Amino acid sequence: MKVGFVQFSPSFGKIDENIEKALSLIDESAAELIVLPELFNTGYLFISEKETHKLAEEVPSGKTTKALIGIARRKKINIVAGLAEQDRGNLYNSAVLVTPHGFGGVYRKVHLFNEEKIWFKTGGEGFKVFDIGICKIGIMICFDWFFPESARLLALMGADVICHPANLVLPYCQDAMVTRCLENRVHIVTANRTGIDRRGDKMWRYTGKSQITTADARILYRAGAKKDEAGSAEIDLQSARNKRINKLNDLFADRRTEHYGQLIKG
Amino acid sequence: MKVGFVQFSPSFGKIDENIEKALSLIDESAAELIVLPELFNTGYLFISEKETHKLAEEVPSGKTTKALIGIARRKKINIVAGLAEQDRGNLYNSAVLVTPHGFGGVYRKVHLFNEEKIWFKTGGEGFKVFDIGICKIGIMICFDWFFPESARLLALMGADVICHPANLVLPYCQDAMVTRCLENRVHIVTANRTGIDRRGDKMWRYTGKSQITTADARILYRAGAKKDEAGSAEIDLQSARNKRINKLNDLFADRRTEHYGQLIKG
Repeated sequence: MKVGFVQFSPSFGKIDENIEKALSLIDESAAELIVLPELFNTGYLFISEKETHKLAEEVPSGKTTKALIGIARRKKINIVAGLAEQDRGNLYNSAVLVTPHGFGGVYRKVHLFNEEKIWFKTGGEGFKVFDIGICKIGIMICFDWFFPESARLLALMGADVICHPANLVLPYCQDAMVTRCLENRVHIVTANRTGIDRRGDKMWRYTGKSQITTADARILYRAGAKKDEAGSAEIDLQSARNKRINKLNDLFADRRTEHYGQLIKG
Repeated sequence: MKVGFVQFSPSFGKIDENIEKALSLIDESAAELIVLPELFNTGYLFISEKETHKLAEEVPSGKTTKALIGIARRKKINIVAGLAEQDRGNLYNSAVLVTPHGFGGVYRKVHLFNEEKIWFKTGGEGFKVFDIGICKIGIMICFDWFFPESARLLALMGADVICHPANLVLPYCQDAMVTRCLENRVHIVTANRTGIDRRGDKMWRYTGKSQITTADARILYRAGAKKDEAGSAEIDLQSARNKRINKLNDLFADRRTEHYGQLIKG
């Protein structure tokens, strides 16, 4: 199965321009599953609640999800894309899944980073796995990666591939994804953005280097730090489904859950 | 606080020789907390139940623990060392803690690797944190590292430093420790062995590169792959105790345990 990402530098607030850019990169890709960055349509650095409300869209009726559904149908592909979601007055840092059959679902970021806590609510539904026919996918968004629980939960729920829209500003994630893949025997596609957001007195620089990492801990593709890219690579789904590492060890069966109680204490 | 490791190549079954070698390397070290490899006194590659029983010792009355208590008292240091433990007919792949005050406790490996499952029982007590006065330490042994739950549990229980006796044969652990430290804001001292075990038709090659990794994800010391070493480095305990990463995020307070239930399902 061929998976891919789209990496570019969204312009803050210019939704039409960002959608157009993303669609043109998606059109270049031969992947069957394509991951876009976090908040790919709006940009990241919100500075007021008012503008966040103005830019967030309803899912799946908003124009961003509609545009993605259009291209997913036409190209018969699956897309996971980060966007600002609006639902009955509440805002979420979300990722939508669209498939050749239309809208497939939405994930609302569980672990919010920094001022996202001001603009967005945390998702109340937690992590989810979606069966898209060719495989099962899980979604985590950016900072979710920092918590080993995120990828672990998705893998335990059966994900073969974790789609990881991101707006990374720190240098740790890409190397850490090797460990996340290894410990869970799962593939991860991290779609990061590039460029700079300048808003008021704030400036954030995003680090690119979107990455496709395999269940056997190989980096199949790491994009450049600055350029637009629609990278893709072939992954072996079977390697994510077999958790056995030798005759006597199985990564999941060997978990000693009777000793893990402290993990869920508040 | 100065932490360190001892790295060498134990000779299978030659307990006296291995203790002597370890003590001479401990004597070279200026660290206040020193970690020794997994099964440092016996070697790793057991091939019969009979020899495992013959080599395993009671804790703390066996000669290995006694020798460690002796040097810990004399040098006023703390030592965590892997050994084969015997207790009422049961065998464990354990690590003992000895302090300037004597025997401090024992941890029995929770996640057994490969044929260890034949020779050893899993520890029934799970992970533990020990207060040694200058700091709190947790212990995980070799393959435990592969499960993100191990270091997570120890950090949640308050460990500042995770002592990690190991007999590594794969190349992944050292880089992964950067992620383990980062995600838990905890220091890790991995003491690996070097050399080769040849037993019957079996041969295992150990990879050395013992490592001291900090709570802020820096590799302070990585030993060579083959040589004997007593490496040490100064760590800042405070950096492991503060889990805040910016004004709005705290690594532990931000865990969304209400969504983590699946982690403890059997």
